[in-house]
Amino acid sequence: MREDRRADELRPITIEVDYLEQPHAAVLYSQGKTKVLCTATIEDEVPRWLKSSGRGWMTAEYSLLPASTGERTQREASRGKQGGRTVEIQRLIGRALRSVVDFETLGERTVWLDCDVLQADGGTRCAAICGAYVAAARALDRFGLSKVLTDSVAAVSVGIVDGQPMLDLEYTEDSTAEVDMNVVMTGDGRLVEVQATAEGAPFTRELLDELLELAGGGIERIAREQEEALAVA
Amino acid sequence: MREDRRADELRPITIEVDYLEQPHAAVLYSQGKTKVLCTATIEDEVPRWLKSSGRGWMTAEYSLLPASTGERTQREASRGKQGGRTVEIQRLIGRALRSVVDFETLGERTVWLDCDVLQADGGTRCAAICGAYVAAARALDRFGLSKVLTDSVAAVSVGIVDGQPMLDLEYTEDSTAEVDMNVVMTGDGRLVEVQATAEGAPFTRELLDELLELAGGGIERIAREQEEALAVA
Amino acid sequence: MREDRRADELRPITIEVDYLEQPHAAVLYSQGKTKVLCTATIEDEVPRWLKSSGRGWMTAEYSLLPASTGERTQREASRGKQGGRTVEIQRLIGRALRSVVDFETLGERTVWLDCDVLQADGGTRCAAICGAYVAAARALDRFGLSKVLTDSVAAVSVGIVDGQPMLDLEYTEDSTAEVDMNVVMTGDGRLVEVQATAEGAPFTRELLDELLELAGGGIERIAREQEEALAVA
Amino acid sequence: MREDRRADELRPITIEVDYLEQPHAAVLYSQGKTKVLCTATIEDEVPRWLKSSGRGWMTAEYSLLPASTGERTQREASRGKQGGRTVEIQRLIGRALRSVVDFETLGERTVWLDCDVLQADGGTRCAAICGAYVAAARALDRFGLSKVLTDSVAAVSVGIVDGQPMLDLEYTEDSTAEVDMNVVMTGDGRLVEVQATAEGAPFTRELLDELLELAGGGIERIAREQEEALAVA
Amino acid sequence: MREDRRADELRPITIEVDYLEQPHAAVLYSQGKTKVLCTATIEDEVPRWLKSSGRGWMTAEYSLLPASTGERTQREASRGKQGGRTVEIQRLIGRALRSVVDFETLGERTVWLDCDVLQADGGTRCAAICGAYVAAARALDRFGLSKVLTDSVAAVSVGIVDGQPMLDLEYTEDSTAEVDMNVVMTGDGRLVEVQATAEGAPFTRELLDELLELAGGGIERIAREQEEALAVA
Amino acid sequence: MREDRRADELRPITIEVDYLEQPHAAVLYSQGKTKVLCTATIEDEVPRWLKSSGRGWMTAEYSLLPASTGERTQREASRGKQGGRTVEIQRLIGRALRSVVDFETLGERTVWLDCDVLQADGGTRCAAICGAYVAAARALDRFGLSKVLTDSVAAVSVGIVDGQPMLDLEYTEDSTAEVDMNVVMTGDGRLVEVQATAEGAPFTRELLDELLELAGGGIERIAREQEEALAVA
Repeated sequence: MREDRRADELRPITIEVDYLEQPHAAVLYSQGKTKVLCTATIEDEVPRWLKSSGRGWMTAEYSLLPASTGERTQREASRGKQGGRTVEIQRLIGRALRSVVDFETLGERTVWLDCDVLQADGGTRCAAICGAYVAAARALDRFGLSKVLTDSVAAVSVGIVDGQPMLDLEYTEDSTAEVDMNVVMTGDGRLVEVQATAEGAPFTRELLDELLELAGGGIERIAREQEEALAVA
Repeated sequence: MREDRRADELRPITIEVDYLEQPHAAVLYSQGKTKVLCTATIEDEVPRWLKSSGRGWMTAEYSLLPASTGERTQREASRGKQGGRTVEIQRLIGRALRSVVDFETLGERTVWLDCDVLQADGGTRCAAICGAYVAAARALDRFGLSKVLTDSVAAVSVGIVDGQPMLDLEYTEDSTAEVDMNVVMTGDGRLVEVQATAEGAPFTRELLDELLELAGGGIERIAREQEEALAVA
Repeated sequence: MREDRRADELRPITIEVDYLEQPHAAVLYSQGKTKVLCTATIEDEVPRWLKSSGRGWMTAEYSLLPASTGERTQREASRGKQGGRTVEIQRLIGRALRSVVDFETLGERTVWLDCDVLQADGGTRCAAICGAYVAAARALDRFGLSKVLTDSVAAVSVGIVDGQPMLDLEYTEDSTAEVDMNVVMTGDGRLVEVQATAEGAPFTRELLDELLELAGGGIERIAREQEEALAVA
Repeated sequence: MREDRRADELRPITIEVDYLEQPHAAVLYSQGKTKVLCTATIEDEVPRWLKSSGRGWMTAEYSLLPASTGERTQREASRGKQGGRTVEIQRLIGRALRSVVDFETLGERTVWLDCDVLQADGGTRCAAICGAYVAAARALDRFGLSKVLTDSVAAVSVGIVDGQPMLDLEYTEDSTAEVDMNVVMTGDGRLVEVQATAEGAPFTRELLDELLELAGGGIERIAREQEEALAVA
Repeated sequence: MREDRRADELRPITIEVDYLEQPHAAVLYSQGKTKVLCTATIEDEVPRWLKSSGRGWMTAEYSLLPASTGERTQREASRGKQGGRTVEIQRLIGRALRSVVDFETLGERTVWLDCDVLQADGGTRCAAICGAYVAAARALDRFGLSKVLTDSVAAVSVGIVDGQPMLDLEYTEDSTAEVDMNVVMTGDGRLVEVQATAEGAPFTRELLDELLELAGGGIERIAREQEEALAVA
Repeated sequence: MREDRRADELRPITIEVDYLEQPHAAVLYSQGKTKVLCTATIEDEVPRWLKSSGRGWMTAEYSLLPASTGERTQREASRGKQGGRTVEIQRLIGRALRSVVDFETLGERTVWLDCDVLQADGGTRCAAICGAYVAAARALDRFGLSKVLTDSVAAVSVGIVDGQPMLDLEYTEDSTAEVDMNVVMTGDGRLVEVQATAEGAPFTRELLDELLELAGGGIERIAREQEEALAVA
């Protein structure tokens, strides 16, 4: 049973917007013990299939640093390939961010979002989306491209742990959850992506509805944190 | 606009249960022009992390044959790695099938589900799940292990095309859909996996509910087709 | 000892010419239990070394589906490379087919021949050549390029099993053969490729001659089946 | 010309010893704008060639985060292999650290040192060695293994820029240096590794001597910083 | 037209049996300008599938040194994989040599045959087989295992160049040959492997017979050279 | 203790300048039992980053033949990647040779230096540098580009074995050395690269000086051998 916060409460969030000097933008996003370094780099090039289209691209890469998890995770560069989980997560981050981009306004540029997990305690893919949005907003603003983003975007995990719906699972909760769900929403409360998975037994529509409700409340609060962090920077 | 069937109608389904003689089970699952060959192989071994646990494993692999799509897709074996889409899909198939498996009853065995798309016209991941369930059921039955499966499982795609909710998208519909959603459910109507993605603009909760409704009806009909195909075999 | 057919008899052959609707041509070639899906795709591009040469190219890829063999064979895409046997076979198929192509008439196009073995019971490389010829002929005909092929081409395996020359080995025969030989010939009876291998003891010239004779008879019959299948289509 | 510090002066150093909570030790080592996150993980396993030897092992991995450099560097995990420069650097870090390890006292354990460069402004391999030493010392101390380290170890870069010997090159200096040299020394002033490279014209023995002198002074000061950081932690 | 030797004449052969001191055997085999370094290494291990079988294994690897060909060939180690031609050739060499091995007499040992082409002027796979036999014989003899080889083995290329059958093609002949054939035979004149390929037009049985005749004569002479080289060593 | 030569004596050197006929230059460089085949190939192309710069490039690749070492070393092409040691060595060879190249005089050409170790008995990277210089000089001379090289370059290993400084270590010495050092110098006695590594305990400045002295004497003698070999060729 969760003791240090309510079932519908988020972990404490801190967003360090200009954490490094050299990248176009570098955000250290922390939610509880989960810490993700999200950088944005804007390049004056597009993938081949967009050449001469007048439109740009935004893409994400995700990585767990080897010691970010309790036991050491083997470095993917030394194994020679990205694992299935990594691929799945970075595709999700990319889709989530692209949902709030106006590619015509971006023009023929590529925005690279690199999300490197320094410390993992559950919810890293959601934290990566939240931090990557701030990094993208910051970098685009610096390049005079702030109109590229049509809204903000954030994500949160919810799940059923010991039969109870809970918001923002940490690792020990996540690993025993019966249902695990990640929800991505825009700042104005619309859905971008819903991924719900029965880890143990299948679940009902009522439960899905309850979890979506819980997620909506969490994302609203995260969206405010993102806005404040960008306002100060 | 869809002309040959209603918005809430599935494409014609055929399930050839014993399509080949040598595999433990080989099912040719067709839904409209989409055709997936699903085989199941039962091995008396488990991955290392399950040794001496008394429990088994079930895993899936997915592949598009090069000419299955309109233009030829490069063979992943000759590119030297599986693409991100393939990895994402085969992880989904594996999770979907594992949700109806009792691993203690399976014992220390691995069930391999191979889903090779012979022809792709939208909905291949859902067709793969539907066919893989039939293959798994058939192979387990042959090995006297029919109690391993606790329920049936099936999947269907739904989406918003030209502003209208539609069931079982074919390729031309899928490629212009504003929202694309895959739903996996058990035979008794509970949810196993929900993956909804805004391809264009973000979407509302009402729309999500409408799509879930549509998917539920489709899966019910597919579950009956699966049952009949297995009953005859 | 072979009981269901004579030593110089082929297994039953069926050739489904338009097995799928989407590829330029898709042929399901069965010889006994061996079943190979052969597709042909014609692209308006040539490899770099043929650019501006006025000449085209034809190339083949071959793969065993994981469950096509008795025990499951690991998928080459997930191992990250094609095995030596695969490479050797697909090079043979490509050479065999190119021997009946007039590349000037083809023009700057590439014909891809994909041979995916759905079920393997010996003789898969020969079946792939026989099916790939039909697929190539069918696809070229559809593109008004039927003059590209200067002759038909077919292949058959022969071998010495228990001291006796035999035509068209199935798996159990092949795995105990003392000599294993694959012969590729054109429709007019000339040789394209001869590959004879002593699996056990070396063999004599007389034996080689006897095997070539046997192969010649088999290929003549296959060539007639190919012709009929194309005539009907 | 260097304006903000003397030719024999180091950039400001900060060492955050317990930067993260989950790894056995996590040190954020900064020297000017160069920032390297160094973690140490102690595993109760050794590589195969040390099994039953009673001796342990220490090894290092190094990586540049994509946005750590001015322009984005492609992620090695997505390229599928570690580049030559990475391999060379992580071998150097490993050798440097092993020079102060008593492997019998360590026993059959492996110490993994992961050095991830968050921001690169010259001297990253030296910073990685300096930070990795602190991380190793901290983790070993926590496991009651502080006697494993026989001395401290640190490294610094020196070079000839515009004809003048300089200590601790930043990126703009490094990229125009005529001679580039990395020196690794123990806390008691002995040499562990010397790597001097003529980037432009070859150089004389006198110059080598002068650079070694300069490096010695720098390393002495770094060693004091390391000691203080560990004393406080 | 060939001017410096008759159509049925071999190029000059030299076999340096103990070319290097460290390998178990190292043979520099030269035929005209083609030079292949063939080494044999005997290891006291067998592949997994032969463990506890009482039988050994013999396998070959083949490589072209980058500058061995006229234009530089990219190194396969730096491309990250062996090409199809390499794989095909090393499988041929292995099969050829295994045809004269008594694996029970060898016992649970592996003989590695490494064939590195220092200079390539046609016929490298045949030269590799000829040299590898000498290296294997020499190494086995040194280990008191000379009874492992039941016969000698050699290979030669033949072909049709400008309509004329020719023995032992050099590169300029090989690249214009209409038919290209490699024949492997034992010292007592039996066939081990026949690989005939129509490079241009298909060919007749009569021609195949003529080429086999020519090859037989060549191999007889090579077998004598092998025997003499081993006698002297 | 070294018995067949003095501590400051080189092993016998032989340099066969035109060892092969086909490469632009092929040098067999032997120092004691260490034998390295060094070839140079000049291509009329440059890497992308030098296009239209008027400048050329020189690069090296290094490989151990599998049987060159006592026990067989696995072929890197069959493992699918070059090991860390190989990468480190070929980068060193490239840097060493580039230090005596005038890239403007070379023009937009690439010189490939391939160093394949036929037999390894210590000092292979130094032998590769010495032989590669001769190969480069020979090939450039043949192309009328002898002014591209501004000086000669050579390398030698030195080390502390049983407490005593020694020149040109062979394998048994190298594997027990307390300090291992490779020095690269030009013909006029200037330093190009110094790499000193404490294998056991760290070492003093005095010792470093002594080793540099020893290396200088050795390189002077090698430079004379190189000059003579080129003069004769």
